Amino acid sequence: MKIGIDVKANRLYSPQLVGLISTIDPKGKPNVATFAWITSVSSNPEMIAVCLAPKRYTYECIANNKEFVINLPAVDIIDEVWFCGKHSGRDIDKFKETGLTPLDSIKVKPPRIKECAVHLECKLANTFEVGDHIIVIGEVVAKSCDENAIVDGVLDVQKVKPLLHAGGSKFVVARDVVDVK
Amino acid sequence: MKIGIDVKANRLYSPQLVGLISTIDPKGKPNVATFAWITSVSSNPEMIAVCLAPKRYTYECIANNKEFVINLPAVDIIDEVWFCGKHSGRDIDKFKETGLTPLDSIKVKPPRIKECAVHLECKLANTFEVGDHIIVIGEVVAKSCDENAIVDGVLDVQKVKPLLHAGGSKFVVARDVVDVK
Repeated sequence: MKIGIDVKANRLYSPQLVGLISTIDPKGKPNVATFAWITSVSSNPEMIAVCLAPKRYTYECIANNKEFVINLPAVDIIDEVWFCGKHSGRDIDKFKETGLTPLDSIKVKPPRIKECAVHLECKLANTFEVGDHIIVIGEVVAKSCDENAIVDGVLDVQKVKPLLHAGGSKFVVARDVVDVK
Repeated sequence: MKIGIDVKANRLYSPQLVGLISTIDPKGKPNVATFAWITSVSSNPEMIAVCLAPKRYTYECIANNKEFVINLPAVDIIDEVWFCGKHSGRDIDKFKETGLTPLDSIKVKPPRIKECAVHLECKLANTFEVGDHIIVIGEVVAKSCDENAIVDGVLDVQKVKPLLHAGGSKFVVARDVVDVK
């Protein structure tokens, strides 16, 4: 047993599921960025928390437009996921640079991402400052997914192949299903 | 594209990493329960959020003792993980029933779980009510992990085989690593 280890806590509680968060920036331009500190937080109403550093452009965009979409990327767009985490929408148009396709959302202004199997459209419900980050709470106002993304009531990970982040450039693909029953 | 689908949001933003949360109950007895709505939320100080329904016994335990440990379970203890999510520590001693081994923590009173590769000892820093759940923020005050759990600075998922929850009795094993570089 190693104790007093100097590995970061977020690399120990790992890997966490990656989301591509799409927003509308203060100039009205769509933006997209990569996050992995995301979790469901409420069943009724359905709410999801995205935790981000306040300096991130996505935070400025959400503070401005009060809406965002959580898109679930798969391993086939890992290069785009990496790019969207490494570059700021302050400097470039990431949809243009990556070729990711914006798709009109059902209920919010930020676009869904066509290449992602799942889209959760959110309206900003609350924010909480915690340490050096801000927890942004979104109420899910619309949901959509690919025709074949669901099997037996849950996400078909073998088909969708969601990405998890282990740390740095290392990702993990969720693929092996175990039914405990 | 399916729209207006009736699949729960937490089964679409899925799978999420499972944690076994160990606590001390108001009678001084160790308790352990399964959660998957967990995320890192701050780098400096290191903080993690666990989101739980206020009726859960774990919430009562944390409110009482102000400490908890996040233990990372692997697929080899999936039956114990399932049991600890299905039964309340109000009724039974889950360490006794499952055979999971409590191990003294470094800095907090709740025990670590010997069968888990990673342990994050937390002190309660804050709580936030969100919808029908409560976000419990823990500051990480001690970290420990198995001797061989880390490779190249990140968790060795091929060795540790962390469990993710897809919904109901369905879990996913994190195993396939991709380095984007």
